Amino acid sequence: MSEQFDAVDIIRIKRDRGTLSPAQIDWTIDAYTRGAIADEQMAALNMAILLNGMDRTEISRWTAAMIASGERMNFSSLGKPTSDKHSTGGVGDKITLPLAPLVAVFGVAVPQLSGRGLGHTGGTLDKLESIPGWRAQLSNDEMMAQLADVGAVICAAGAGLAPADKKLYALRDVTGTVEAIPLIASSIMSKKIAEGTGSLVLDVKVGSGAFMKDQTQARELAETMVALGTDAGVKTVALLTNMSTPLGLTAGNAIEVEESVEVLAGGGPQDVVELTVRLAEEMLAAAGVNDADPARALRDGRAMDVWNRMIEAQGGDPRAALPVAKESETVYAPADGVLVELDALAVGVAAWRLGAGRARKEDAVQAGAGVRLHAKPGASVRAGEPLMTLLTDTPEKFDRAREALEAAVVIAPEGSRPAQELIIDRIA
Amino acid sequence: MSEQFDAVDIIRIKRDRGTLSPAQIDWTIDAYTRGAIADEQMAALNMAILLNGMDRTEISRWTAAMIASGERMNFSSLGKPTSDKHSTGGVGDKITLPLAPLVAVFGVAVPQLSGRGLGHTGGTLDKLESIPGWRAQLSNDEMMAQLADVGAVICAAGAGLAPADKKLYALRDVTGTVEAIPLIASSIMSKKIAEGTGSLVLDVKVGSGAFMKDQTQARELAETMVALGTDAGVKTVALLTNMSTPLGLTAGNAIEVEESVEVLAGGGPQDVVELTVRLAEEMLAAAGVNDADPARALRDGRAMDVWNRMIEAQGGDPRAALPVAKESETVYAPADGVLVELDALAVGVAAWRLGAGRARKEDAVQAGAGVRLHAKPGASVRAGEPLMTLLTDTPEKFDRAREALEAAVVIAPEGSRPAQELIIDRIA
Repeated sequence: MSEQFDAVDIIRIKRDRGTLSPAQIDWTIDAYTRGAIADEQMAALNMAILLNGMDRTEISRWTAAMIASGERMNFSSLGKPTSDKHSTGGVGDKITLPLAPLVAVFGVAVPQLSGRGLGHTGGTLDKLESIPGWRAQLSNDEMMAQLADVGAVICAAGAGLAPADKKLYALRDVTGTVEAIPLIASSIMSKKIAEGTGSLVLDVKVGSGAFMKDQTQARELAETMVALGTDAGVKTVALLTNMSTPLGLTAGNAIEVEESVEVLAGGGPQDVVELTVRLAEEMLAAAGVNDADPARALRDGRAMDVWNRMIEAQGGDPRAALPVAKESETVYAPADGVLVELDALAVGVAAWRLGAGRARKEDAVQAGAGVRLHAKPGASVRAGEPLMTLLTDTPEKFDRAREALEAAVVIAPEGSRPAQELIIDRIA
Repeated sequence: MSEQFDAVDIIRIKRDRGTLSPAQIDWTIDAYTRGAIADEQMAALNMAILLNGMDRTEISRWTAAMIASGERMNFSSLGKPTSDKHSTGGVGDKITLPLAPLVAVFGVAVPQLSGRGLGHTGGTLDKLESIPGWRAQLSNDEMMAQLADVGAVICAAGAGLAPADKKLYALRDVTGTVEAIPLIASSIMSKKIAEGTGSLVLDVKVGSGAFMKDQTQARELAETMVALGTDAGVKTVALLTNMSTPLGLTAGNAIEVEESVEVLAGGGPQDVVELTVRLAEEMLAAAGVNDADPARALRDGRAMDVWNRMIEAQGGDPRAALPVAKESETVYAPADGVLVELDALAVGVAAWRLGAGRARKEDAVQAGAGVRLHAKPGASVRAGEPLMTLLTDTPEKFDRAREALEAAVVIAPEGSRPAQELIIDRIA
């Protein structure tokens, strides 16, 4: 591509609320990827995009340019439909674990490229790595073989997929420009479209434990991503779901795997089951399978069979004992009444501080660390009853975890009810 | 200073329209100067400041922090008042050259730290360097000695003055964040306050050839700078002056020195004389000298005497012949009538393209290049009469200079009058 544009001119256009042309966007992404636009220039442009926005045409082209920066996978040789799910991230969000094998039960292949946790939301790969022997890194050929054989794979995205997004995400992380809807939407969708899935269900979280704290923003993000997927020929549906309290009764790594296995065994917390089944129905419908009964496939063990084969295919032992934290402490209910609030962000930060998450990319996580909940909003509790158990290998972390939880719990008089529905809306 | 803040938190505050505390601002400037805040982080912060603004308290602290990043000069040992002038930059703006010696005639010392040109506005040091032997670089001791002896000095700012501003300005230049009033005001005022002048007169240009294209912005910049100077104990006054057409009849380097010498000899174009005298009156009044008659000091040769001594003190020969461009071309009037518009920006860009200015900091300038005007707005012209002479050593540049001038000239029917007053307002 010739040097037909100047980085400062591009920045000025967006700074002055102008619209970037397709050629300008292509040049910007390409020039940044190969180093012809400096990090400080891209940072200024990102802040201008965050504050002044981009229109749908710009976001669509920005996404296409990021896809074009790398390789694009193709699953058409599999001879079966493909579907994927992406969550914008929440506390206790282990849904991918039971969901991928569940959908594969019905002959829809699930190529789930996942990430690691950063900050208070956990990473799917970190959770699975608590299973002895399991490995996240697969070659494209291994991934194809596993999709053909088992039907489901959860693994790390290869470096060849949307390299522009990788560079851009690292920059946004240190420049306060993560929270821009055009940049979030294009980052997620460039990877999902390049990954080559035929259909996609987005789980857009809203609430204290989510990236998006209010519904207006979450809805805008969901609509933007659905439009991007649809424009790129990927059948895309989004659910807006509640993230004001953690999903299920665990936030951590091994303890979330344990809870996922309970769900695959036909049990588990009601909210995790509900969301898993609903997302499976959406993925199957998007992939053209309309007569499936995923709830039954959880109860009758078919999903568990796929799970076992999926974990084994990646070197893991699905029957091995999971790591357990060396130390634990209990948090007790401060009063009698109804638990009306159990704040997702507070629990996420506590789990993170206990060692379940990382502050920097290069940090290691503790497999056994996290928070186990003994009650969820809506439950009646008695003063002095255990509310949560804090788990870690490094007991000096308890104090900071308790600090995070200080205002997390609200107990109201008997008869009160928390106003929380799990699935808020559907955007197609 | 301890690492009490985080760069991303600081960026987020400004991104979300918050106010930075004095401690946060001090930390930001200090951390950036010593490299603890990366360029990409400062670029994002600058863009957030450009788009979301800073209040007066923040700008004042930002300026103080930049002053604190380096040394601060002190002229109190001179035993005479000091006054300085700063222009925000215009086309043909050679006023500093006659002004500094003129003010020194009346016993007020003028420590004029100047810059080089970048883009279409010329640099005072570039102009003076066309005088054989003259040097811009002086040590602090040389500067003090010259102020004591001659009373006026025009030289380059030392590297020790506001180093934070130097680093920040270079960053703003490549990230599209030059045009932020808080950053412009603090950049200018940090250098002027650190320089140690007792009083300061600001010439804030407004119009096509100026940085500020409209009066509202120019007024805001002027008011911000006057407040900053006043708060720092520097008596500060600003004039808003017209930059819709070039000052005087020359835009270049040697040809502007030549015109300045004409003014010092009691002649020269009326607008240059008017602005020089008015700024001298303001500087003298600000320094406490109220009975001076600067117009007379131009006519009777006293200002010229100081000029000659000032140039000689810096190694220059004030009587030496100035460099002359090797090639020239004439631009003719296209019609009969009154010249009502002669666009400053167009003339500035033409002079720059002819070689009088530089595109990058490391470029050299041509001493003889530039544009000589034969008529100013208000003059009656006849079709085919010479309007301008283009001067360069490199004749291949004529075409691009002519392109810049294509829409620069407007000729109206006889009896029309251009509506342009030179001095628009005074802000104190």
